Amino acid sequence: MPQRVRISLDAMGGDHGPSTVVPGAAIARERHPETTFLIFGDEAVVAPLVAAEPRLKGAVEIRHTTYAVAMDDKPSQAVRQGRGKSSMWKAIQAVKDGEADAAVSAGNTGALMAMSKICLKTMAGIERPAIACLWPTVRGESVVLDVGATIGTDAEHLIEMAVMGSAMARIVFDLERPTVGLLNVGTEEMKGNEAVKEAARLLREIDLPNFAYHGFVEGNDLGRGTVDVVVTEGFTGNIALKTAEGTAKQIGTYLRSAMTRTLSAKIGALFARQAFRALREKMNPSRANGGVFLGLEGIVIKSHGSENAQGFAAAVDLAHDMARHDLMRTIREMLDQTPTLAPA
Amino acid sequence: MPQRVRISLDAMGGDHGPSTVVPGAAIARERHPETTFLIFGDEAVVAPLVAAEPRLKGAVEIRHTTYAVAMDDKPSQAVRQGRGKSSMWKAIQAVKDGEADAAVSAGNTGALMAMSKICLKTMAGIERPAIACLWPTVRGESVVLDVGATIGTDAEHLIEMAVMGSAMARIVFDLERPTVGLLNVGTEEMKGNEAVKEAARLLREIDLPNFAYHGFVEGNDLGRGTVDVVVTEGFTGNIALKTAEGTAKQIGTYLRSAMTRTLSAKIGALFARQAFRALREKMNPSRANGGVFLGLEGIVIKSHGSENAQGFAAAVDLAHDMARHDLMRTIREMLDQTPTLAPA
Repeated sequence: MPQRVRISLDAMGGDHGPSTVVPGAAIARERHPETTFLIFGDEAVVAPLVAAEPRLKGAVEIRHTTYAVAMDDKPSQAVRQGRGKSSMWKAIQAVKDGEADAAVSAGNTGALMAMSKICLKTMAGIERPAIACLWPTVRGESVVLDVGATIGTDAEHLIEMAVMGSAMARIVFDLERPTVGLLNVGTEEMKGNEAVKEAARLLREIDLPNFAYHGFVEGNDLGRGTVDVVVTEGFTGNIALKTAEGTAKQIGTYLRSAMTRTLSAKIGALFARQAFRALREKMNPSRANGGVFLGLEGIVIKSHGSENAQGFAAAVDLAHDMARHDLMRTIREMLDQTPTLAPA
Repeated sequence: MPQRVRISLDAMGGDHGPSTVVPGAAIARERHPETTFLIFGDEAVVAPLVAAEPRLKGAVEIRHTTYAVAMDDKPSQAVRQGRGKSSMWKAIQAVKDGEADAAVSAGNTGALMAMSKICLKTMAGIERPAIACLWPTVRGESVVLDVGATIGTDAEHLIEMAVMGSAMARIVFDLERPTVGLLNVGTEEMKGNEAVKEAARLLREIDLPNFAYHGFVEGNDLGRGTVDVVVTEGFTGNIALKTAEGTAKQIGTYLRSAMTRTLSAKIGALFARQAFRALREKMNPSRANGGVFLGLEGIVIKSHGSENAQGFAAAVDLAHDMARHDLMRTIREMLDQTPTLAPA
């Protein structure tokens, strides 16, 4: 476990760029004072922001870059134009070169994944990388993957994700043997597509020491926290994630409207304002911000492009935890313990 | 438009059977007094319940059945054992025989779909039936399909669903030209799997008179009500639906807990009790209960198995509306206007 955690930051990513990234890093460093940052971006913008943050004193090295990947660049275009020189590429390269333990970017997801694959390479034994997030549940949090790295899946890919997601859950939740569920349209054996049915059969058979296969889970098990790790294909996972975010917003709208409709409701809202504040904090998506790229030869964290400094800090926290508790080694060890899965 | 609407009911379906089905029918009939019911089930149980409901007086014919499909029967098993004699089969058969304009069952979804396909047959021009639901949004409601009839899709199937979902939206929302979106992981043209990309290309090209193709929508557009009809593959649609239901429950749990934690919050909740009641009613899944089977030669509605009488009544309302406004004719007309879609 490295005592110091060195995090490289793409300062130019996201809707707000350095004005969010630098204060976000400062907030995270207050929680983890052993962190240092290597910040890639336009020095003329970044340096004054860093100088204005006493919490970052002595903990930052700025590397000037002149090219930034745009939020709407196609991944292929971003790679062609930004390879080797963009702030995003250089933040990833720092991980490859051993100058940083993890990279964080709020930039274009597709570009970040494409560059990470080219620069860091996929881990031996992993077919395709995945993006994992922390999903808030009534019991705490679960790891959910894939929420958008890939489209389409097969049984082996689902099992790889079960292994990688469990490695992340062991670190984040400090669990010896996290429980793993496959997201499906029902819990009976015959339900679902071929990929989940085959993956379920294999997971029941192999019975690994590092996680416990629970069985199928459904969409409503996500918020319940039925299992520690939920595995699904990226198309469905991304839609489930955004559906949950949308539903939370929708209910927030209903609640605000209900609480302002009558005088009595307004008085009630006044008495309950502390309670509403706690609720708002609980439902704040910034708290759980950060997608962990799993399956690469290095740690890369994606922050939401629209997050504020608090949200970016949550993504930096995640990078810190993954690096400090050596996610890479945990995944490698778990992969070594997984028998080769020949398709039936 | 038929003046009288005749609905056949499977009294033995769902977790509560006739004790929910009969009062549910009574509640719906109060709203639509022109409705009559043909109820299939155990006469010894059904008859006293009907006799106890003044709102059903003179509007019910009971047909005794001795076999009920179990909630956990496999569809193939249910068909083998229940064909021709179960209350579920007979309710569907009544539609086929012209004795009823629509059938409603709270029974086993897989069995209900399998029996409906065998008994009623799939419509000419439709590859596979779908299940559509009404999704509550901040703007009202949207039609969302498929929420669980099929697994996997292709471009033609998605376009069939766009046509059928629009027919349903025309009736339920009384719209001339509903807007239709394809559920995807992003709104850019290059996003998604081959099926949605190809369907999008075709929908942009054909430009039908009866609905307006909006483009891709994402998971968070569901609660926003961005479009009147959201089309997706059944695996993803089912998971999105259950994820939204789960998220709503989760937030309800947070809210209850926040409102009971301190004295001040409790006082606030007391003042706001009317507002909370309105909110609870708004979030009540029973209000939007009922899955419409689209693409069959007849109208079949699935009620949630765990619904109470109010929920079952909502499903009966849906059956009433679909029959009264002639869903079958609307779908047929719209299919006739859709050029044959040869894959590119």
